[in-house]
Amino acid sequence: MSQPRTVAVVVGSLRKDSVNRKVAKALAALTPGLTFDFIEIGDLPHYDEDVEAAGAPEAWTRFRKEIAARDAVLFVTPEYNRSVPGVLKNAIDVGSRPYGSSVWNGKPGAVISVSPGAIGGFGANHHLRQSLVFLNVPLLSQEAYIGAAFTLFGENGELVNESTAEFLKGFGQNFAAWIERILAEPAGKAAA
Amino acid sequence: MSQPRTVAVVVGSLRKDSVNRKVAKALAALTPGLTFDFIEIGDLPHYDEDVEAAGAPEAWTRFRKEIAARDAVLFVTPEYNRSVPGVLKNAIDVGSRPYGSSVWNGKPGAVISVSPGAIGGFGANHHLRQSLVFLNVPLLSQEAYIGAAFTLFGENGELVNESTAEFLKGFGQNFAAWIERILAEPAGKAAA
Repeated sequence: MSQPRTVAVVVGSLRKDSVNRKVAKALAALTPGLTFDFIEIGDLPHYDEDVEAAGAPEAWTRFRKEIAARDAVLFVTPEYNRSVPGVLKNAIDVGSRPYGSSVWNGKPGAVISVSPGAIGGFGANHHLRQSLVFLNVPLLSQEAYIGAAFTLFGENGELVNESTAEFLKGFGQNFAAWIERILAEPAGKAAA
Repeated sequence: MSQPRTVAVVVGSLRKDSVNRKVAKALAALTPGLTFDFIEIGDLPHYDEDVEAAGAPEAWTRFRKEIAARDAVLFVTPEYNRSVPGVLKNAIDVGSRPYGSSVWNGKPGAVISVSPGAIGGFGANHHLRQSLVFLNVPLLSQEAYIGAAFTLFGENGELVNESTAEFLKGFGQNFAAWIERILAEPAGKAAA
């Protein structure tokens, strides 16, 4: 069997104790068939075309290489003011540039939003999807709005809610299958 | 007559030669009844609740004070990947915190999007509006999607497109009237 597919995990919250990070870690633990690598976004300077023209900051270059090196990308995002946190949108902007060299192009992806409230980050989830359609990220067509997030984890950050665990297990399996479908050679091409 | 109302101008592009900044400057020149103050957002560290808890960075405090001190707010934004630039969304997130102390609350506002293309930043414009509804910013109900933006200005950054100048002049008048409506004491209250 070939190597497991690699997934770049981009978490939209910088908090150390972030429930978004906990959800991502729980998904990784429940999906042994994929390798999840957490990619840092907190050190990326704000995107500025003038700065790019003068020479990309090291953090931008590092980030672009780390995304490009993975087979797929998973976004796990909180909702800030009914949209994507600025820090996460900036990471998307940085990865999309320079023009013609976007690291997102064609990479299979998935989106999970996580919030303490009842709406589960729906607003952020779909704002993110609008950008990812533009960036040609083929997205897993499965909704994942995880609400009441502060009630799902134990004292050591372990997932204690069984229905969420079941959901994430299925989500991980579907994502793995989606990655294979997108990255597979077309049958006709392989036979040629 | 009383002092002119003051407007905090938040521009979503950091480029020195930004057409968004040019549009904002043209609007200011065409709207003598309002005072427009450009507020810096490029130096704001990414929002992080842990950082807030340890003591807000000076730039966050400076930004919050500068917004709070104005009567109204104008957003002029490009579109990055069919949404708001990360740097602008971060400024909105910073201004909205700490919880209960948002500087946006109740402040009359307006949104203009500017892009080189045909859609005029529609995607960014309405993503921004979704956040501003949540933040209780009473927004001027006037669409402003300025497309083909690279064709509108002369060599010295002056607006040379007459219909855009007419549009901005009307927009500025409407915004000034909107600010008065929102900030006015209710008639019943004033009479009491």
